[in-house]
Amino acid sequence: MIEKRTLRVALLGAGSVGSQVAHLLLTHREELAERAGAELELAGIAVRNLDAPRDVELPRELLTTDAESLIVGSDIVIELMGGIEPARTHLLTALTSGADVVTGNKALLATHGAEIFDAADQVGASVSYEAAVAAAIPIIRPLKDSLAGDRIQRIFGIVNGSTNFILDKMDREGLSAEEAQRIATDLGYLEADPTLDLEGYDAAQKAAILASLAFHTKVSLEDVHREGIENVTADMIEGARRAGFVVKLLAVCERLEDEGEEAISVRVYPALIERDHPLASVHGGNNAVFVEAAAAGALMFYGAGAGGLETASAVLGDVVSAARRHIAGGVGVGESPRMSLPTAPIGRILTRYQVRLEATDEPGVLATIAGIFAEGGVSVATVDQSQGDEGLASIVIGTHRAREQALSDTVARLAASDAVERVVSVLRVEGE
Amino acid sequence: MIEKRTLRVALLGAGSVGSQVAHLLLTHREELAERAGAELELAGIAVRNLDAPRDVELPRELLTTDAESLIVGSDIVIELMGGIEPARTHLLTALTSGADVVTGNKALLATHGAEIFDAADQVGASVSYEAAVAAAIPIIRPLKDSLAGDRIQRIFGIVNGSTNFILDKMDREGLSAEEAQRIATDLGYLEADPTLDLEGYDAAQKAAILASLAFHTKVSLEDVHREGIENVTADMIEGARRAGFVVKLLAVCERLEDEGEEAISVRVYPALIERDHPLASVHGGNNAVFVEAAAAGALMFYGAGAGGLETASAVLGDVVSAARRHIAGGVGVGESPRMSLPTAPIGRILTRYQVRLEATDEPGVLATIAGIFAEGGVSVATVDQSQGDEGLASIVIGTHRAREQALSDTVARLAASDAVERVVSVLRVEGE
Repeated sequence: MIEKRTLRVALLGAGSVGSQVAHLLLTHREELAERAGAELELAGIAVRNLDAPRDVELPRELLTTDAESLIVGSDIVIELMGGIEPARTHLLTALTSGADVVTGNKALLATHGAEIFDAADQVGASVSYEAAVAAAIPIIRPLKDSLAGDRIQRIFGIVNGSTNFILDKMDREGLSAEEAQRIATDLGYLEADPTLDLEGYDAAQKAAILASLAFHTKVSLEDVHREGIENVTADMIEGARRAGFVVKLLAVCERLEDEGEEAISVRVYPALIERDHPLASVHGGNNAVFVEAAAAGALMFYGAGAGGLETASAVLGDVVSAARRHIAGGVGVGESPRMSLPTAPIGRILTRYQVRLEATDEPGVLATIAGIFAEGGVSVATVDQSQGDEGLASIVIGTHRAREQALSDTVARLAASDAVERVVSVLRVEGE
Repeated sequence: MIEKRTLRVALLGAGSVGSQVAHLLLTHREELAERAGAELELAGIAVRNLDAPRDVELPRELLTTDAESLIVGSDIVIELMGGIEPARTHLLTALTSGADVVTGNKALLATHGAEIFDAADQVGASVSYEAAVAAAIPIIRPLKDSLAGDRIQRIFGIVNGSTNFILDKMDREGLSAEEAQRIATDLGYLEADPTLDLEGYDAAQKAAILASLAFHTKVSLEDVHREGIENVTADMIEGARRAGFVVKLLAVCERLEDEGEEAISVRVYPALIERDHPLASVHGGNNAVFVEAAAAGALMFYGAGAGGLETASAVLGDVVSAARRHIAGGVGVGESPRMSLPTAPIGRILTRYQVRLEATDEPGVLATIAGIFAEGGVSVATVDQSQGDEGLASIVIGTHRAREQALSDTVARLAASDAVERVVSVLRVEGE
């Protein structure tokens, strides 16, 4: 048997994912060596605080606060610190010193992805980031490799487990948003500062990463239209249920024609999904991503959307691949964005909508409302009128596919109309 | 810009998948070159009959009946002929002459996989076969790369679209097996000779390929316990529905302890799945595969299970990867089986069962039946007795998890008992 090479692996960060990665690298050493074709030697673990408590006990002698010295001379650098700095600087140092890089840092990739990929391409190194989107679910590699000979038209899915947990609780147990959030916090689904999840920032970061990869275009967080679940009420969810829908926080990345030009739209918002759609049965903290490609048709990838151990699986898959690549030594095709498709404004997207109104319960009111839709060029598909509170009529109008701009102009006119007391909610219908 | 290398690509076979692959290679030339990092020049297409009708029109000058000459000197050989010979000889020639190989030939891999992988390892070439299992659904690559740092415990899923179409029709429209098969034949879901699908051979080939890859062990078609859907009746499906299940033809590959030794079980049979399990909502000709790994947890991959264009997407993904590898030149880690886990006999598996009996409707009969289960060491979980035909009682017994051997011994004793008129069906419950 040929003597195996030994690759030096540096780990930056020992949080819930990092400590599991370290543990697996140390305990599965032999099996990983078989698979990678090289010994993977964990050279050290850079941490901020040597004495912080860890999810898994780690050998004290591997811990260091000097990330810089650890990085230089390593063959593979795993970055699981999170945040922009010093993660960005460390990754750039790693790449220029010849290491292949594995990261789970979605915030960094969603803001400085192009810079990192360019740096990697210049030195012929690889950047792997399966763990940055949907934890253990293989989605980055299928997009990059399996569908490399296909053309991706649309990606949409549930990429934030915390908000899915909350919406699912509200849907299945009829809880209020506050109750569901409290349970999510108690069970550790929400951070102390839950705004990253609730306001859709986390999902938007993942959407930016997916869109960049799928469309070979530089898409940053600020290109993503973002709405969170802050305004989703038990009432909205109940209304959706009655109409045969479930409310999910979706990330959508799609190609569209924008006034004859090819463009993309990247957006995150709570949307309606038909109850018999596979995404409707994604419960709890799970994630699921649909990919629609020209030849392959519709594919779905489903699994746990978070968890230290689950995410560590994705990191190790990347480490093994990086090791194989490091030994092979070839440069390969980089990920520098080679297209520059414009991002269309949200007003250009085409979907169906469900508009819920409270209106005065008088003769002619429905005719007035229908007239406003007609003037706005938005075609009405379904109307469901029922008795609301305080003598008002509750009207739910489902539209055919319409431009968002036409719809929002119509909604503004509805809100200003004497016939309408209040526009209760406007939700897009996705997954069709 | 650096001049791109040109790689010679040979295509063997121009059936429904091959003709689509040729078409995509010719029409997406520029985009594929960008992604592969090299021009992919379709050097020729080996066919048996130059004048056979094709799904897509192909340039006459590319067609040849001389596969051998086409292969030698090619950088990448795509084999989509199917069958064992001459496909096997052609692949071995391709590998020894230095080509990387892409194939969708499940029959060949399920019988001669180890030979092909060994040949590839000896010369440091790659064999890619995403198209061999579940068409466009990326499942081979996730198992091989994404989960390379994890330990796969179980794979189970729907890997044959034709039988899923038939069972789904029977379940959703109450059709008889004959009616459903006739529709499947009319719509092209079944071949002229449908036995490969109906008797589970196709699913068993795929199970052998998945198990070999997941457990790094040589698993051949003859190691797979195989039962088809020939004996599934409308009645069984109706009974399953009443009990909250749906009948699916499943491929199951799992690790198990067999008398203290690590072993694997690979099997294909119609099984019961709870109606709220994600696999239950896989309709029509679609495929879906669950993968359970120690760290990653449960993952599901879903999409179209057949189709020329869909399968061509998987082939092209492999071609682009093979091209990248061919340029990089590295050898990488091969797929020669490096473990040799024994295959446990079917009697060793542990599942739940639903046993349906017709019994004489007399006092003491249920006690006798319950006694036979108890003697056999099979614990009863549920009993559902109803009035059957001709004064007989229809009894459905759901068991707790039990060894298949204990269960089948018990069923034999039930069949021999005076209390039991007939054992109507025995179905395993999977997905738990």
